[in-house]
Amino acid sequence: MSSNSTMPTPPNPRSSIAEERANPSFPVRELTYWIDGGHRVTELKERIMLELERDPLWRVSDHPNLSLAETRERAMSKIRRLADLATSRPLEETMIRMSIISVVDPGFWTRFGVHFGLFFGALQGQATPSQMAYWMDKGALSMQGITGCFGMTELGHGSNVAGLETTATLDEKVDEFIVHSPTLTATKWWIGGAAHTATHCAVYAQLIVKGQCYGTKTFVVQLRDTKTFALMPGVNIGDLGKKMGRDQIDNGWIRFTHVRIPRSHMLMKHTKVTRSGEVIEPPLAQLAYGALIQGRVSMVSDSANVAKRALTIATRYASVRRQFGGSVSAGAAETKLIDYPIHQYRLLPLMAQTFAMIFTAREVTANYEKLMGELSDLGEAKDAAADDVIKNLKETHATSAGLKAFCTWMCLNIIDQCRQSLGGHGYSAYTGLSQAYSDFAVHCTWEGDNTILTLQCGRYLVATALDARKGQPLPENLSYLKGAVSATGGLSDRACKGDSAEQVSSLDTLKAAWSSVAANAILNAVRDFEAGLGKGLSKDDAYEFSSASRLHAARMHTYTYLLHRFAAQVDQSPTALRPVLTLLAQLFGAHSAVQHSGEFLQSGFYTGPQIETLKGFVSHACSEIRKDAVSLTDAFNYTDYVVNSPLGRFDGDVYEKYFELVTSLNPAKPVPYFDSLIRPLLERTNETEAGPELEIDEE
Amino acid sequence: MSSNSTMPTPPNPRSSIAEERANPSFPVRELTYWIDGGHRVTELKERIMLELERDPLWRVSDHPNLSLAETRERAMSKIRRLADLATSRPLEETMIRMSIISVVDPGFWTRFGVHFGLFFGALQGQATPSQMAYWMDKGALSMQGITGCFGMTELGHGSNVAGLETTATLDEKVDEFIVHSPTLTATKWWIGGAAHTATHCAVYAQLIVKGQCYGTKTFVVQLRDTKTFALMPGVNIGDLGKKMGRDQIDNGWIRFTHVRIPRSHMLMKHTKVTRSGEVIEPPLAQLAYGALIQGRVSMVSDSANVAKRALTIATRYASVRRQFGGSVSAGAAETKLIDYPIHQYRLLPLMAQTFAMIFTAREVTANYEKLMGELSDLGEAKDAAADDVIKNLKETHATSAGLKAFCTWMCLNIIDQCRQSLGGHGYSAYTGLSQAYSDFAVHCTWEGDNTILTLQCGRYLVATALDARKGQPLPENLSYLKGAVSATGGLSDRACKGDSAEQVSSLDTLKAAWSSVAANAILNAVRDFEAGLGKGLSKDDAYEFSSASRLHAARMHTYTYLLHRFAAQVDQSPTALRPVLTLLAQLFGAHSAVQHSGEFLQSGFYTGPQIETLKGFVSHACSEIRKDAVSLTDAFNYTDYVVNSPLGRFDGDVYEKYFELVTSLNPAKPVPYFDSLIRPLLERTNETEAGPELEIDEE
Repeated sequence: MSSNSTMPTPPNPRSSIAEERANPSFPVRELTYWIDGGHRVTELKERIMLELERDPLWRVSDHPNLSLAETRERAMSKIRRLADLATSRPLEETMIRMSIISVVDPGFWTRFGVHFGLFFGALQGQATPSQMAYWMDKGALSMQGITGCFGMTELGHGSNVAGLETTATLDEKVDEFIVHSPTLTATKWWIGGAAHTATHCAVYAQLIVKGQCYGTKTFVVQLRDTKTFALMPGVNIGDLGKKMGRDQIDNGWIRFTHVRIPRSHMLMKHTKVTRSGEVIEPPLAQLAYGALIQGRVSMVSDSANVAKRALTIATRYASVRRQFGGSVSAGAAETKLIDYPIHQYRLLPLMAQTFAMIFTAREVTANYEKLMGELSDLGEAKDAAADDVIKNLKETHATSAGLKAFCTWMCLNIIDQCRQSLGGHGYSAYTGLSQAYSDFAVHCTWEGDNTILTLQCGRYLVATALDARKGQPLPENLSYLKGAVSATGGLSDRACKGDSAEQVSSLDTLKAAWSSVAANAILNAVRDFEAGLGKGLSKDDAYEFSSASRLHAARMHTYTYLLHRFAAQVDQSPTALRPVLTLLAQLFGAHSAVQHSGEFLQSGFYTGPQIETLKGFVSHACSEIRKDAVSLTDAFNYTDYVVNSPLGRFDGDVYEKYFELVTSLNPAKPVPYFDSLIRPLLERTNETEAGPELEIDEE
Repeated sequence: MSSNSTMPTPPNPRSSIAEERANPSFPVRELTYWIDGGHRVTELKERIMLELERDPLWRVSDHPNLSLAETRERAMSKIRRLADLATSRPLEETMIRMSIISVVDPGFWTRFGVHFGLFFGALQGQATPSQMAYWMDKGALSMQGITGCFGMTELGHGSNVAGLETTATLDEKVDEFIVHSPTLTATKWWIGGAAHTATHCAVYAQLIVKGQCYGTKTFVVQLRDTKTFALMPGVNIGDLGKKMGRDQIDNGWIRFTHVRIPRSHMLMKHTKVTRSGEVIEPPLAQLAYGALIQGRVSMVSDSANVAKRALTIATRYASVRRQFGGSVSAGAAETKLIDYPIHQYRLLPLMAQTFAMIFTAREVTANYEKLMGELSDLGEAKDAAADDVIKNLKETHATSAGLKAFCTWMCLNIIDQCRQSLGGHGYSAYTGLSQAYSDFAVHCTWEGDNTILTLQCGRYLVATALDARKGQPLPENLSYLKGAVSATGGLSDRACKGDSAEQVSSLDTLKAAWSSVAANAILNAVRDFEAGLGKGLSKDDAYEFSSASRLHAARMHTYTYLLHRFAAQVDQSPTALRPVLTLLAQLFGAHSAVQHSGEFLQSGFYTGPQIETLKGFVSHACSEIRKDAVSLTDAFNYTDYVVNSPLGRFDGDVYEKYFELVTSLNPAKPVPYFDSLIRPLLERTNETEAGPELEIDEE
């Protein structure tokens, strides 16, 4: 501001980012292969990204300027091509295509998934073979004749399926069910595809036979005439309109007024209802875990994939944006954001979290597939092997509940932190992350509300610890509880073995630290649960009483799990990648520990001075990883089309391309309301006045 | 799910909420008066809320369904009425009206504020008396002839005003400045009101006289002809289009190409440029703190006001929404969300944070006004009294920076946590909190990016601690540093005096605990700063080196400040309110301490078992405050119009009103693209085929 000022130097973003790539510490392409699971997958992804980019239907850069109606129509226009590809191409390719689309266009992904995942999934999981053949014949797989939606949630009922109010009452006389919404709160609500797309719905309703309620079952109800799209008799449907995000999917409400369907439209793989009205329930409460786990596991992958995009944008922008610093009087350029320690501290722990999710997603996906294979091999046998598989299934179910919750929360936070790191430009709809946040947020609610899932996970942890006390063996992922539940109890023998930065922050120390703290958190939840029982509470109420510590135990267990999976993948990684991946894993473990330092102090694993050393290590690791930051985003290997933000461009040319995008989408036009509103404002005169003088006021 | 199921009981939301109001522990209306600052203010607020509600221009429930163009036109249509009120009614009333509007319609509030706050504020702060008279005469206050905008930020430059590239070069020959954007990154960007509204702009540009650059000054540049709205020669303006939120305000970009303005359009209250081209700089670098502090203080109020709305919605919904629990087999109603300990744990600490912000906002606003009064009384004197005022001003500047950052972050988190607590319904655009989040998010970026502000606050804390070591007296709000900076150092004598829940969680203990931990955090930042100096870094680089601990020190100081202000207000509150307010203040202090338990263990204030006791207190406090939860939202005294969410209705009739709103805003219509897209999808046949057999393939 003084008279010695010189003119500031304009930024040169292209060269700013180029210099970041001069000397990566690792082979970038190798890391891409390692992340993707081999060069074959990488090349397949590249082919699909190119196909999408070249297809005019798949333009996404103009999304912010589309109206709700345009958004939905654009989405519908893409369904057919994708449906054809999904039925004609190998499943692996379809899965990869969908995982890319879930990043590029999450709302469309949902619209497509409602039919292929939810509706068709309900048939696969709950139809008998002859029912399945019937619906396949009608075109239920390929949308040739049928488009489906999934009618579970109601206006007054979300997570609690047992509390649904819709009824399906058998009319034995004519062999039909009468599907009915008895109250306003029974209205099916949030039904994706209902407003505009679906001809049929898999409706969850209370099965009522001869005045007796048998709980919630699934019924296929036709909503619309497939030739005219007219609503079927007794079916009312409305549009839920605007949402926080994912406006590509047409969520609607549905009310049924005595709608009649054939008895055979009840999906009877499990519970069966005969012609005479006999209800045959399955011998064992069916293990529906499988489908639940799959949905949760896929959301860990989705969290990783979306986080990759957010970090690509934030890291590349931080490498070209310059602000303050530099010696202005000498005419030097300002300092890059990424050169500020605080900016490294904002972004790079999020980078480490992203890698933790990438590798965990891969491992839990593989485990899940292995487990499903074992499960289907089991058949009807009830032996020791079966017990093991069931035990693993329960553990995977609980762990995946915790992972779904904490990974979606982690990703949502990553998106918003990355958005905030863009400064004012993060608030533009054209830089990508505000929409990413709105689209992603629902992941924390659907497929099991995160808070409820954490409590499920915590309940399993408490129950497992109690079982272990009684001598039952611990599942492998909970082996860290071993010492903790022994009669001598306590974890005081587990403590960091030395004070040096190397000792405090080594991956082995961090793994032990997290295991110790997780065990401690589970024991605290057990303590609170038992205190509840001690007060005379029922088991369920004692679990409610201990919910805060249960949630916390689930958090600590999940972070521990993430760190262990990350470390396991580092151990298997190619030698050339190991140094950078090790540092990222350490940063994940150390930063998360510092964030929860109270637990580590209370468990006695770290001392106060060791925590200070760990904080120093976090700063050090950030400054080391900073050198590779742009190369790490390059290894994510998202094309500019997928990144879909001018601030995250590979070539760093952010300002030119941001300006071009904004001006091309918002061409100059006269102000539409100048004559009607602005001119009268500018030209108005004051109309307020004091009124006439009154005689009685005269003196 | 078993055959013993009975039909679920539909919820009865009206009676569910009515029973919450049966027996509040405090006089609700008294608390409203205490929050508002007296019944006169409460009644004025009620009058204004009613005026807005009855004015059709002020309909806001349909906002989610408006297009960008409609949103902006609706906003413009409200400007005139409000401008007339602002100039004809007392300032206090205008301020209260604007604070209500900032909750009801934050985007409009910004559009209005750009002229009245930013543009007119620049004139007030930087124009000479004769310049001010000139612009007043042109209608700059009342928008009668002039509508203004504020041209500071550029495409390539946000927070760093000294780095702006726009130039204003004196052409002495004709006594004019030439305003010019030399590069693309010099384009004025984010300028609210530029795209559609403004005739004039207060442009920040580098002052250049006789080839010499004098740093950034402010120049009034006319953008459009006031009669035709045609752009002035050399002025190009574009529309920035869609944003994350606040679409009511028409942000634009502006490029200047050799635009000539009279020399007298430079605002010359401080730096002056004579006819002959002599630049006269002010004797002292001017104290621009005042305006900055005002903006920050107002954002603490805004955070409190928006948080009140979010909690009203979430708390009332939690009191009528039922889910799980209950004895379904007995046909009992499900359990209210608010009866779950985990739900209390999710919402009620946020309620305590909101009260902390309410009371802190009131106190810092009053302090700020007192300080400004003292400052204007000072005149030109340079004596001991002046030193004190300047010292207070610096302290207030730093504290308000920390408050702005942590309160806006706190409020943003409150909005999102409240939204998530609504389950799936939080994702609807009609339940209010998704838009509240998008609108509020920019508060974390503008008026000083939060991260930069925290570092400013932290820098002040480090500098003050260093000064205190040299014997300088500490400002009152930092008196807790007294023992910490003494030669003997250390804080080991400060520790919790007993282990009982009463002792661990009393307000006095919590105040001492936070003071102790804040002092510790500041000392750690000092340690890191000095370690940086020890490595030979410059002072500025040593500050960068210590940025993580500086940010942390700012956080601890700000929470301590919030708790102390909250406690001070509790002490002054009417007797009947004191129990509930005391409990809320304890919950704020205790919950925040548990969230940062590592700091309290490291500082030695609490032991591990005491932290466990504190956690137990948090649960206990939540269960106590739960009894008053709805009454506390009633005391916020927002009408249903201001709450603007069917889920937050006073009467609890959430389902009927939510259904009515959604259906009235989204009336039934035929699916617009059935013939063009859906029918062809359903009726298509497969086109993929294997191709003809090839002769060479024959065997």
